[in-house]
Amino acid sequence: MTSSPRLPEPEGLREAFWALQQRSADSPEAYAEGPATLHADPDGLLVGHEEVVAALAARPAATDGGRLTAAHVQTIDADHALVVSVTAPAEGGRGQRTQLWARTQDGWRVTAAHATGPAPALDTRVWRVVGDPLVPGASEGPLAGETLAVKDLYALAGHRRGAGNPAWLARAPVEKQHAAVVSSLLDAGADTVGLTRTDELAWSLAGANHHHGTPPNPAAPGRLPGGSSNGSASAVALGHVSIGLGTDTGGSIRVPASYQGLFGIRSTHGAVPRDGLLPLAPSYDTVGWLTRDADLLARVGDVLLPPRPSPRSAELVLCRGLLTEADPEVAAVVEGWADRVGMVVREPFDTGALPAWRQAWSTIQSHEAWQAHGRWLARHLDDLGPDVRGRVEAAAALEPDDVRRATALAATARRRILELVGDRVLVLPAAATVAPRLGVGPAEVARVREATLRLTCLAGLAGLPAVTVPGRTASGLPAGVCLLAAPGRDHDLLDLVRRER
Amino acid sequence: MTSSPRLPEPEGLREAFWALQQRSADSPEAYAEGPATLHADPDGLLVGHEEVVAALAARPAATDGGRLTAAHVQTIDADHALVVSVTAPAEGGRGQRTQLWARTQDGWRVTAAHATGPAPALDTRVWRVVGDPLVPGASEGPLAGETLAVKDLYALAGHRRGAGNPAWLARAPVEKQHAAVVSSLLDAGADTVGLTRTDELAWSLAGANHHHGTPPNPAAPGRLPGGSSNGSASAVALGHVSIGLGTDTGGSIRVPASYQGLFGIRSTHGAVPRDGLLPLAPSYDTVGWLTRDADLLARVGDVLLPPRPSPRSAELVLCRGLLTEADPEVAAVVEGWADRVGMVVREPFDTGALPAWRQAWSTIQSHEAWQAHGRWLARHLDDLGPDVRGRVEAAAALEPDDVRRATALAATARRRILELVGDRVLVLPAAATVAPRLGVGPAEVARVREATLRLTCLAGLAGLPAVTVPGRTASGLPAGVCLLAAPGRDHDLLDLVRRER
Repeated sequence: MTSSPRLPEPEGLREAFWALQQRSADSPEAYAEGPATLHADPDGLLVGHEEVVAALAARPAATDGGRLTAAHVQTIDADHALVVSVTAPAEGGRGQRTQLWARTQDGWRVTAAHATGPAPALDTRVWRVVGDPLVPGASEGPLAGETLAVKDLYALAGHRRGAGNPAWLARAPVEKQHAAVVSSLLDAGADTVGLTRTDELAWSLAGANHHHGTPPNPAAPGRLPGGSSNGSASAVALGHVSIGLGTDTGGSIRVPASYQGLFGIRSTHGAVPRDGLLPLAPSYDTVGWLTRDADLLARVGDVLLPPRPSPRSAELVLCRGLLTEADPEVAAVVEGWADRVGMVVREPFDTGALPAWRQAWSTIQSHEAWQAHGRWLARHLDDLGPDVRGRVEAAAALEPDDVRRATALAATARRRILELVGDRVLVLPAAATVAPRLGVGPAEVARVREATLRLTCLAGLAGLPAVTVPGRTASGLPAGVCLLAAPGRDHDLLDLVRRER
Repeated sequence: MTSSPRLPEPEGLREAFWALQQRSADSPEAYAEGPATLHADPDGLLVGHEEVVAALAARPAATDGGRLTAAHVQTIDADHALVVSVTAPAEGGRGQRTQLWARTQDGWRVTAAHATGPAPALDTRVWRVVGDPLVPGASEGPLAGETLAVKDLYALAGHRRGAGNPAWLARAPVEKQHAAVVSSLLDAGADTVGLTRTDELAWSLAGANHHHGTPPNPAAPGRLPGGSSNGSASAVALGHVSIGLGTDTGGSIRVPASYQGLFGIRSTHGAVPRDGLLPLAPSYDTVGWLTRDADLLARVGDVLLPPRPSPRSAELVLCRGLLTEADPEVAAVVEGWADRVGMVVREPFDTGALPAWRQAWSTIQSHEAWQAHGRWLARHLDDLGPDVRGRVEAAAALEPDDVRRATALAATARRRILELVGDRVLVLPAAATVAPRLGVGPAEVARVREATLRLTCLAGLAGLPAVTVPGRTASGLPAGVCLLAAPGRDHDLLDLVRRER
């Protein structure tokens, strides 16, 4: 241990530091109590003892163990010192850790830590394959200079489609040609950087892939990224790419956009070709994409969407009933957005039918997923994560009558939703909650999923385009505002967001 | 700015912090004078004001600019405070910076900083393409569980060979089959993680590719990684992979191994098939690989080398004249290794012929590189970095008489080197110097190159196998010990290193 020459090392510090090294440098008990305690690492800054301890407990241990190769002490006074240490793990690289130590009534504690572990070649929570670029786009075009992350459900020539599941990947053929949207984006000049992780078969909204881990949410460290387009969303939020290509069947663009403070669009059902896209539930599957700014969101739309019909302006409507489906802090974000934009009509909405609609949507989605992949899924139940496995088993148990009833109810719902929307733009929460903390239990994940699906199923049932605009709660967490319009009005929503952002 | 509630913020700190934010958080003038000042970032820990300032000046500015989104102050006393700040660059991600500030006689200064910028999807200084894995190896085999980085000179089916130059990459065809050694390693169970950067056409020993930047040297932060197998070497040192496949024509395995504290082997010329390897100078080009441990180095040899002949023990010989070619701190590492191993015979060596031998080696190498690639190079001089361009222009100006004379001298040198080695193992420095600091001028780079080539050309001229063993100088910097033996004795060298490490 090298010590700054000016002052002697404080008594007891060395023992406390070594004791912590013997355990793990991220042991929660090392951190000082109180709201000012800090922990920074490449996944983000955690503030306050409670948040630090919760997040560290939920994360896999940082791989900065290994032989201590240096420890530099800057003594401040008898009760404070900064220790900067370097470790050399057997797996290569270097771990570095800066800790401010203070003598508290409980003994020596860390009040702030900043850790940089040896980083892997690629963050396999976010990506499966990456290149510089992996596939170059055309040298000229409206998207020249933009970079693209492709959800691992779309075909990329020369690569397999992994669908978020190792067993699926292992038997997947090498694709001979790009998915239609990938071709369009390459022709428009965007470079494809790589293939991103997805929840298994896109069948989740949490973004916590059982096999590949949970991508970081840089806008809300210590919280879920949202899924199923989790890899593409994190890649955009992390600044790895400017455009994240995803899909939205039940909210897989809207939820990660909302959790991570991104712009996103789920396009009108059927408006953007799905050739080369692995289906989940064809009646609801749509192409979608995520960006950090509204202008690029619209410019991608200019490339992928059918030609722009004559623009129509629209009355903005906020259905008060839909707000009550969301947590109050999220509802307040939507109210705030409406207040800021102005000219938003408030009207009541009877939410009584929502649970049944959401159930009908779910039944049809499950039925179609089983139709599409049941033969493979039935043989690979043990290869699935527990959450997706549960959904697959429920899908396998569906009776024809369940599906018939759901189909009839979905048709009714579709008519009613199209009437409700009409020529207007509906303003509602993109997700019912902020991003849940990492490590919340299955009950809370299920509550969040249920509440969000009651909102997101509206676009699914009626095939509507849905644009998500990032917002922030009073406590600073991301929460998205969702805009819905009649099918085919994608450009109008994109124009509105570009104007009002 | 959130302040820890316990104490008021020190006077003047806020102004100093903001003034630094207005410039760049890495401005050298912010750092306190003296040997205890620290700067940590993902490229390593810099110690002392001089090293911090030199390295920051040589590096491209860290991309942690952008809007300040949070700053937390932990006040320690009226003259000390820790500031942890978060920035949100327009390009996405988050920059995080922990700074210990102290009031000095010069005003507020940073005595320690730890910065984590938004990381890119992949470190394009090290890699061109990466996958998880990019190409899986056989599920069983002697190298199952190992991971492989492939220098971007070897064919990988489905990918182009980039050779460290963007213009070369742009016109390169997609390879139809793997290079022979890549196939062997995949068959043995190693997963190929990706393709690594190289100096242009492998024609450098510095590891500072003009187009793709200088990979980090985690064993010596702020210093060159060594080349031309720089990407594979950094990938191993960083812990991205366990095996780095490279080439060695004039030291391209030995120099990065020496600079980064790795084990490495340049195999006997012609002993390992070069099918699918882009040539630089076929008379000298060899297959080589790098690892973090001697055992794996030998296990890869078991896969790639011709079957093991009956092992022969050998007398270890340290030629004192060769030590004088290296900087004293490096010579001391070699002496120290010999002392530790014991039973090393010291003998004199007349170094008078070395400059001419090194020149003959260089002339033939340049001539062959021009034969191999002259047509392309002549049309692409403007697409080359200045150092490689200089070598190409010198190669183009060679007269047939130069080549004839060099060839005759090289034949003499080869005989004399083979006689010198005989049945023995020569112990010498792997490179003449430690890794030069980033940002040293071209004159120092040329001196280092010249001095190292006088040592490394011996194996080149005589086609010898060369194994590099990591060592450390008295000041803690990596410096390798090189072991040479007669052609075909690769296994004996690997066994020796495995035994003596």
